[in-house]
Amino acid sequence: MNVSSSRRGAVEPFHAMDVLAGANRLIAQGIDVVSMAVGQPSDPAPAAVRRAAAEALERGRIGYTDALGLMSLREAIARHYAEHYDVEVSPARIAVTTGSSAAFNLAFLAMFDAGDRVAIAAPGYPAYRNIMAALGIEVVEIELDGAPYLDAAHLRTAHAQKPLKGVLFASPANPTGAVIPERELGELVATARELGITVISDEIYHRLAYGAPDRTALAYGGEVTVINSVSKYYCMTGWRIGWMVLPEELVRPVERIAQSLYISAPELSQIAAIEAFSATEELEAVKARYAQNRELLMRRLPELGFPLAAPMDGAFYAFCDVSRHTNDSMAFAGRMLAEAHVAATPGKDFDPQQGHRYIRFSYAGSHADMIEALARLERWLK
Amino acid sequence: MNVSSSRRGAVEPFHAMDVLAGANRLIAQGIDVVSMAVGQPSDPAPAAVRRAAAEALERGRIGYTDALGLMSLREAIARHYAEHYDVEVSPARIAVTTGSSAAFNLAFLAMFDAGDRVAIAAPGYPAYRNIMAALGIEVVEIELDGAPYLDAAHLRTAHAQKPLKGVLFASPANPTGAVIPERELGELVATARELGITVISDEIYHRLAYGAPDRTALAYGGEVTVINSVSKYYCMTGWRIGWMVLPEELVRPVERIAQSLYISAPELSQIAAIEAFSATEELEAVKARYAQNRELLMRRLPELGFPLAAPMDGAFYAFCDVSRHTNDSMAFAGRMLAEAHVAATPGKDFDPQQGHRYIRFSYAGSHADMIEALARLERWLK
Repeated sequence: MNVSSSRRGAVEPFHAMDVLAGANRLIAQGIDVVSMAVGQPSDPAPAAVRRAAAEALERGRIGYTDALGLMSLREAIARHYAEHYDVEVSPARIAVTTGSSAAFNLAFLAMFDAGDRVAIAAPGYPAYRNIMAALGIEVVEIELDGAPYLDAAHLRTAHAQKPLKGVLFASPANPTGAVIPERELGELVATARELGITVISDEIYHRLAYGAPDRTALAYGGEVTVINSVSKYYCMTGWRIGWMVLPEELVRPVERIAQSLYISAPELSQIAAIEAFSATEELEAVKARYAQNRELLMRRLPELGFPLAAPMDGAFYAFCDVSRHTNDSMAFAGRMLAEAHVAATPGKDFDPQQGHRYIRFSYAGSHADMIEALARLERWLK
Repeated sequence: MNVSSSRRGAVEPFHAMDVLAGANRLIAQGIDVVSMAVGQPSDPAPAAVRRAAAEALERGRIGYTDALGLMSLREAIARHYAEHYDVEVSPARIAVTTGSSAAFNLAFLAMFDAGDRVAIAAPGYPAYRNIMAALGIEVVEIELDGAPYLDAAHLRTAHAQKPLKGVLFASPANPTGAVIPERELGELVATARELGITVISDEIYHRLAYGAPDRTALAYGGEVTVINSVSKYYCMTGWRIGWMVLPEELVRPVERIAQSLYISAPELSQIAAIEAFSATEELEAVKARYAQNRELLMRRLPELGFPLAAPMDGAFYAFCDVSRHTNDSMAFAGRMLAEAHVAATPGKDFDPQQGHRYIRFSYAGSHADMIEALARLERWLK
């Protein structure tokens, strides 16, 4: 038997996905699991989105599109920047991608070679680290050590230790929900510019902040690459549509790589996603429910012995310190799923060093699910 | 402005996609282009597939699935191996991917590290070369030099020059349509096993051979990785669903990488694809039209001064020698699109060395389109 296996294939699993697979196995056995593991809205896509998809299905062929996506979707995204952020972006600088997953992979491939050093915050979204590791990029994890978000000082310190080629940050962040305040965001981009560090801003949780208005990193410089998607606010996870706003000089490299690595994002989803930007009323109602869930968890989780490890400014996550219950959040999450039938994500996904002390609950589900999960946790912990 | 750009971002464009983008620009101007550039059926997905998608849209949420795909789809694919090939494959060894594009990327990442040498045939599908180049894998192009397909002797010679870690071949092949005969396929797999070379068999054009029955490389060894998709025979290009049949030891590495790089394939497409395997009557009618197109092109292209450079055994491509008209097939294809409004793919996509002499026509369009394209070419060449 000749089966090669690569060293880079030994990336960490995305534990949230393993928890999802475990939860799905229980559900297949008829067990009623409350899933707070994966960051996915329980609502379907907006009605107008589903209607557009149904019409496209009736019209007929669903084919390849240009590698950068349907021009009509790129134009809709450009209009969104004008309307929501008051920032002018040419549709020519927008690449439609197969979820933000593809956007990260394309950004990393187009910008960085093997051995380049790229900084991310810990805790942070695990796929950043795992994709970069698979591509041979050196991931520099900046431990926040209780600070809510990555700031200019973090960047300076890391760069002084050994020069960085890039930095990637998210606001609102996963898993913490922390929002980088406007002034700090501007300073972060300016500092990166000064130090010659390329910036990628993950804005996938925009429109899901509960206090401050959204501010795109694009407002601070056209050299920034922004990544976003219709998965979170727009309730379209399984449709796999994301996008990048690119500096002009990266458009063609990204297009070339996308042609071979993806061909194009799914056309039906692209057609449907155009409608997402006009479904604001429906989506704000969904967000209002998240806000209700957030209030509930903010109050009840600490009472159950899960103090919040971050401020819950945005996104739909509660990142909790579970050190009162365990020193191994992975085993703890496994038992919680098996015994209490509540799925949550162990902190190791987000922070290999400190994650054993944390667990992430997603509150993108229904309010009834939140109430039920809290009741199950209370019984289970007794 | 700090915008890094990587050396590996300098991959070749997939020229067929550039031709598609060019054709789409003309179409947007109201020009009636006959597209023979991209390998995509002009028929919509089978009715049962579209019906299943419409029902899923009505049911509601389209979400993430397990990274390896919906178990119901993996089971349908496993049944297809039993029914179509009489080969037993456990659904546990099947990974559903976002098109075969994702399957190639996942296979390469899971099997090969930067610097590993992997052989492919030239001419061949350009994304093989471009994805491997982006991942730092050393691509060993075995020039077929008029031979119809890669065989055991080619493999031995290349391996003797400098050892190979892997080999990837396709039958029916893109761009030539050549089918590797049964005995030769068995010998190729056995030789790879003897030499310690990992095999990837691209079977995306299966069910589209016009003479011999399909034979999967899996029949010759469980260590082979097979890649396939619903894009070609099943008329589902834009749905972005492919699959891999993996040796057991690669299932978990592929799952781990897929979790971070893709999360999951689009769920609506996965649900719909389950129905593809029972739409044989509808799909055989489509194939009968390809056979008709094939007869026509086989006769008329050589009459127009485009002799066939390969046997047209399968797939839906005519790979033609255009050296009577040009020594630069790229410029020739550009003029053909601009002046005759017929889009075809320059050979450089498939073979950087010899491709300037060739052009590929896809005959997956309607019969009327084939007739029209031939008439335009005849007028244009005069």
